[in-house]
Amino acid sequence: MDNVEARPMGRSRSIMTELVFPTDTNHHGTMFGGTLMNYIDKISAIAAMRHCGKPVVTASTDSLDFLAPIRMGETVELEAFVTWTHRSSMEVYVVVRAENLFSGHRRVTCTAFSTFVAVDEQGKPVAVPPVAPENDAERKLHDSAPERYEQRKKRRAQRFTTTE
Amino acid sequence: MDNVEARPMGRSRSIMTELVFPTDTNHHGTMFGGTLMNYIDKISAIAAMRHCGKPVVTASTDSLDFLAPIRMGETVELEAFVTWTHRSSMEVYVVVRAENLFSGHRRVTCTAFSTFVAVDEQGKPVAVPPVAPENDAERKLHDSAPERYEQRKKRRAQRFTTTE
Amino acid sequence: MDNVEARPMGRSRSIMTELVFPTDTNHHGTMFGGTLMNYIDKISAIAAMRHCGKPVVTASTDSLDFLAPIRMGETVELEAFVTWTHRSSMEVYVVVRAENLFSGHRRVTCTAFSTFVAVDEQGKPVAVPPVAPENDAERKLHDSAPERYEQRKKRRAQRFTTTE
Amino acid sequence: MDNVEARPMGRSRSIMTELVFPTDTNHHGTMFGGTLMNYIDKISAIAAMRHCGKPVVTASTDSLDFLAPIRMGETVELEAFVTWTHRSSMEVYVVVRAENLFSGHRRVTCTAFSTFVAVDEQGKPVAVPPVAPENDAERKLHDSAPERYEQRKKRRAQRFTTTE
Amino acid sequence: MDNVEARPMGRSRSIMTELVFPTDTNHHGTMFGGTLMNYIDKISAIAAMRHCGKPVVTASTDSLDFLAPIRMGETVELEAFVTWTHRSSMEVYVVVRAENLFSGHRRVTCTAFSTFVAVDEQGKPVAVPPVAPENDAERKLHDSAPERYEQRKKRRAQRFTTTE
Amino acid sequence: MDNVEARPMGRSRSIMTELVFPTDTNHHGTMFGGTLMNYIDKISAIAAMRHCGKPVVTASTDSLDFLAPIRMGETVELEAFVTWTHRSSMEVYVVVRAENLFSGHRRVTCTAFSTFVAVDEQGKPVAVPPVAPENDAERKLHDSAPERYEQRKKRRAQRFTTTE
Ligand SMILES: CC(C)(COP(=O)(O)OP(=O)(O)OC[C@H]1O[C@@H](n2cnc3c(N)ncnc32)[C@H](O)[C@@H]1OP(=O)(O)O)[C@@H](O)C(=O)NCCC(=O)NCCS
Ligand SMILES: CC(C)(COP(=O)(O)OP(=O)(O)OC[C@H]1O[C@@H](n2cnc3c(N)ncnc32)[C@H](O)[C@@H]1OP(=O)(O)O)[C@@H](O)C(=O)NCCC(=O)NCCS
Ligand SMILES: CC(C)(COP(=O)(O)OP(=O)(O)OC[C@H]1O[C@@H](n2cnc3c(N)ncnc32)[C@H](O)[C@@H]1OP(=O)(O)O)[C@@H](O)C(=O)NCCC(=O)NCCS
Ligand SMILES: CC(C)(COP(=O)(O)OP(=O)(O)OC[C@H]1O[C@@H](n2cnc3c(N)ncnc32)[C@H](O)[C@@H]1OP(=O)(O)O)[C@@H](O)C(=O)NCCC(=O)NCCS
Repeated sequence: MDNVEARPMGRSRSIMTELVFPTDTNHHGTMFGGTLMNYIDKISAIAAMRHCGKPVVTASTDSLDFLAPIRMGETVELEAFVTWTHRSSMEVYVVVRAENLFSGHRRVTCTAFSTFVAVDEQGKPVAVPPVAPENDAERKLHDSAPERYEQRKKRRAQRFTTTE
Repeated sequence: MDNVEARPMGRSRSIMTELVFPTDTNHHGTMFGGTLMNYIDKISAIAAMRHCGKPVVTASTDSLDFLAPIRMGETVELEAFVTWTHRSSMEVYVVVRAENLFSGHRRVTCTAFSTFVAVDEQGKPVAVPPVAPENDAERKLHDSAPERYEQRKKRRAQRFTTTE
Repeated sequence: MDNVEARPMGRSRSIMTELVFPTDTNHHGTMFGGTLMNYIDKISAIAAMRHCGKPVVTASTDSLDFLAPIRMGETVELEAFVTWTHRSSMEVYVVVRAENLFSGHRRVTCTAFSTFVAVDEQGKPVAVPPVAPENDAERKLHDSAPERYEQRKKRRAQRFTTTE
Repeated sequence: MDNVEARPMGRSRSIMTELVFPTDTNHHGTMFGGTLMNYIDKISAIAAMRHCGKPVVTASTDSLDFLAPIRMGETVELEAFVTWTHRSSMEVYVVVRAENLFSGHRRVTCTAFSTFVAVDEQGKPVAVPPVAPENDAERKLHDSAPERYEQRKKRRAQRFTTTE
Repeated sequence: MDNVEARPMGRSRSIMTELVFPTDTNHHGTMFGGTLMNYIDKISAIAAMRHCGKPVVTASTDSLDFLAPIRMGETVELEAFVTWTHRSSMEVYVVVRAENLFSGHRRVTCTAFSTFVAVDEQGKPVAVPPVAPENDAERKLHDSAPERYEQRKKRRAQRFTTTE
Repeated sequence: MDNVEARPMGRSRSIMTELVFPTDTNHHGTMFGGTLMNYIDKISAIAAMRHCGKPVVTASTDSLDFLAPIRMGETVELEAFVTWTHRSSMEVYVVVRAENLFSGHRRVTCTAFSTFVAVDEQGKPVAVPPVAPENDAERKLHDSAPERYEQRKKRRAQRFTTTE
């Protein structure tokens, strides 16, 4: 797929806004990590499919940091886009901003990288088009991706020695 | 909390078994990553609270690898326990096994490390008791934890240079 | 609240993207109206609170037209913003676009107007700031709002004669 | 389908009672409009299918007025029935009564009209049998329907001039 | 509470109609028992609170028989009412009818008896008013209740010898 | 299937741990019976399928006793296993333990017996292998099962005289 035209990074940009409901929070009224992870996976999958136009599966999520608690009644706005591609895999970056609608105060509360793989009907990996960054912030994410890719590979190798 | 007695690793071991329902799967019938992440966060939080007897928040999830698709009608069995503690943080390891109930075939489909932090009513970190491994497999996970802790710190430092 | 400064219409613009899951569809694989209504109410409430910075309740939804079926595996992108305000009430417009991620085909599938009312702790209506349109499309929606407001009042009056 | 026998209005009458759970309410403990809309769409679809014996889709919801807040711990009882039919479309009326189970106090909190269309496997509209009102209240709803039908048509025409 | 007036059995009669969605069914398209049990508990609790006007808790469910499978796309209609009371406990009977909306075919698919206990703020049992049957079918259920009450007591006694 | 080898009782043992979330509790903060019943049915079905390696349906649940309330923030741990089989039916026993993670206090809050039937693609009952108890507690449950089986049959016969 080397001669497939690169697609602009902005094309895959996907946004999801959610109110934090009582049902998403623990008894101190702060949001569960698992609920947010579920949102992160959903919006990242959408971004990945928008980029490549094919079904995708989640291969891994790393670097998922929760920087500050999110409270009931606030909104979370998730923004996701594809930052880099290899052959069949895509790195997706998500940034989560919480907003207190009454004070208008907004802050980044979580960032994460996930890897999605495009698959055919049998679940076999298939090639994806490359992605083209279009500004400095995008280029920074794109150019630092190969190093993260290598770290993931190293970590995966380690995994088999530390378990079973 | 230096002179608090260590608690055996097995004490925090927590198990969750779930049937994979149509509602948890995409249109190829394989389970969504986000649903599984939600389960992973739940059972890890339970393990962390069982260890320290305090409310906890998810600080980060790294090294979440999905090794094989999970299909509708299979079960997933998640096993989580605290592998290491620092001052207020606990590393929790989860292993996910999928099982085809008709063939009896079982396989590891996902492993993950998360960090949970014990907090007081105001969400401020509080100290947790240490954990004591009791066999070789547990010791391997325990002894390799400080290196993962350092990698996480390095990654966190990096994060601030790549985004805003 | 007459001398409160008007807020730009774009300030309340809120976006929500959702994948249509098997659980959101009937047995022909098309999305339930009720699920979409639930999304419409959520994103509209967020837009209304972003505008006025106060808790709100849904007073009515009218003109909710479903123009085309939405299928499993597609995404729906909802865009909502406040188009007009009276004393304590705000008219919110929502447009829903469905997108087939594989073909890239996008189409408007639903539009709706709702009225939200800002309330205090006791649920009593409180005044909201006015909204200022900033381009032609926004002005069109803003200038046609008073007529819709009157139609709603007329309809409400009628309601009491047709039921109990 | 002109010579198909009319079916009595009471035949499609469908009832749904739900307890309002914490998960259905905002942080003031009053029910979300979107949750109730979801119930309204469900019970209206059931009434429409009971009338015509065919799959249906929601075409529009208008005149959905929320007259009073509903509180956690109360029940909502929804009653829906087909009030009028045209060729393939059916108008469904819903009345929602909230009840405080401790005081026994009951009140109408919402009324709505929706339009459902009977469809075949390909989603193409198909004819439905007429409906016959059997008492004064039913006749009032039935006889005022053609005017609401015309208003909807007018509103739909307007819609295309105010958006895109 | 001996001199409290009996309330007619019909007063507590509560009805719930639900469409069976893909998400409620296994991969053969038939409804999960657990989903139906959840509905049964909800509508029975409503009937019990309607009778006594107090908060209630489920004490036990017995005699829950699933007579025939229920399929996706069908409706289930649950009808519940209080059949008998002792001091603080109420026996609630539920009958579940499934209906194929396309053929109009209806059949009883499940019946169950549950016991609910009225409680105060501390969860302590409090007295409930008696219930008065008003026709033969109601009297049959009412008059056979004391025997079921005794069987439950016997079963409860037995339970402690077979477990822990 | 008389000459099919018996399977050890422990083979079907299945465990599910759940945190009790705000969304699972009433406004006094204690867990709904219906939510727990749903969990009981899920884990029992898993145990039954693990035993027989075939799809199963819930035939009945009896003897479901709720001994003590469960509070928000506690965990429930359900343990299920097959205690006895007849031709196509399996009796499954569930014990539910609630645990306060802060005090470490654990207690049995519910026990239940259900009957599951193994079915083929058409929903017709098919034979299941016998189960072999391996210790005294298991033998007690196994040996008392035939009497419960008879009680169920008697109750089923009675049911038809008290309803419709
Ligand atoms: C986790 C949290 C309490 C840490 O607070 P803080 O003010 O940064 O506290 P500190 O810097 O003193 O760190 C406390 C501990 O957390 C650890 N920590 C902080 N951020 C971390 C991260 N991203 N990953 C792993 N560990 C982290 C520190 O290493 C330290 O561990 P130690 O006490 O064992 O040495 C805070 O970042 C927070 O509240 N995050 C949001 C948690 C949340 O709500 N999650 C769900 C979001 S939906
Ligand atoms: C909306 C509500 C607060 C209005 O209260 P009220 O006592 O009727 O107040 P008022 O008559 O002073 O009206 C206040 C505003 O609401 C508007 N309003 C009232 N009913 C309305 C309706 N059905 N549709 C549109 N606007 C409506 C009025 O036009 C008025 O607007 P303005 O202040 O901008 O001129 C009240 O009806 C209510 O609480 N409804 C329930 C809301 C709710 O809980 N929704 C979810 C239900 S599940
Ligand atoms: C359970 C079911 C398959 C039994 O079918 P059936 O035609 O009655 O079959 P049989 O009379 O041959 O009985 C088959 C077995 O089921 C058992 N059984 C039937 N009804 C039962 C009941 N209510 N409780 C316990 N066991 C029951 C019989 O004892 C028999 O057991 P055995 O083979 O071990 O001796 C059938 O009633 C059914 O499909 N029920 C609905 C199941 C379902 O969909 N549950 C979820 C509803 S939401
Ligand atoms: C039900 C409950 C309040 C009974 O409390 P208790 O201290 O046992 O009270 P008592 O022994 O005085 O019994 C009170 C009544 O409950 C009835 N009861 C108790 N256990 C019962 C059972 N398992 N099945 C049927 N009735 C039962 C008694 O017969 C008595 O009835 P009566 O007053 O009409 O004669 C208590 O067991 C409880 O709180 N259980 C948990 C309820 C719950 O939270 N359910 C959902 C769990 S997820």
